[in-house]
Amino acid sequence: MIKANVYVTIKQSVLDPQGVAVQGALHSMGFREVESVRIGKYMELTLDTNDRSEAEARVKAMCEKLLANTVVEDYRFELEG
Amino acid sequence: MIKANVYVTIKQSVLDPQGVAVQGALHSMGFREVESVRIGKYMELTLDTNDRSEAEARVKAMCEKLLANTVVEDYRFELEG
Repeated sequence: MIKANVYVTIKQSVLDPQGVAVQGALHSMGFREVESVRIGKYMELTLDTNDRSEAEARVKAMCEKLLANTVVEDYRFELEG
Repeated sequence: MIKANVYVTIKQSVLDPQGVAVQGALHSMGFREVESVRIGKYMELTLDTNDRSEAEARVKAMCEKLLANTVVEDYRFELEG
């Protein structure tokens, strides 16, 4: 059993309107020290395999094909267990 | 300048329909080893302060008040820089 933690973030050059909205909300609540907010996705996958190198290749394929839109998003992941 | 990485996840006892949908999609694409998927949010905040302990208290307050719905979500964060 291998656990994969996947992080999908919007590329730095792409506008993140959700992050801008959250930053505005934080400012209006008094958190004026917040200079920027970028919002991404965090996914925890449990894989029924014990082969780490196979898991790495498979999770990479999942990211490329479904979990991330690589035109506007970056992804990274780490494996546990 | 302190960077805060915030992770918001749905509590284990709460159903995650988005995760179930992604798991179904991965299965239908041939990734049959995926046993479970839980989807959360990942936020990168840049704070204009150098006081780590103050930043820690402030980010905790942001999570409690806006970034996480603590009824159904857990959060954790780490500070960098």
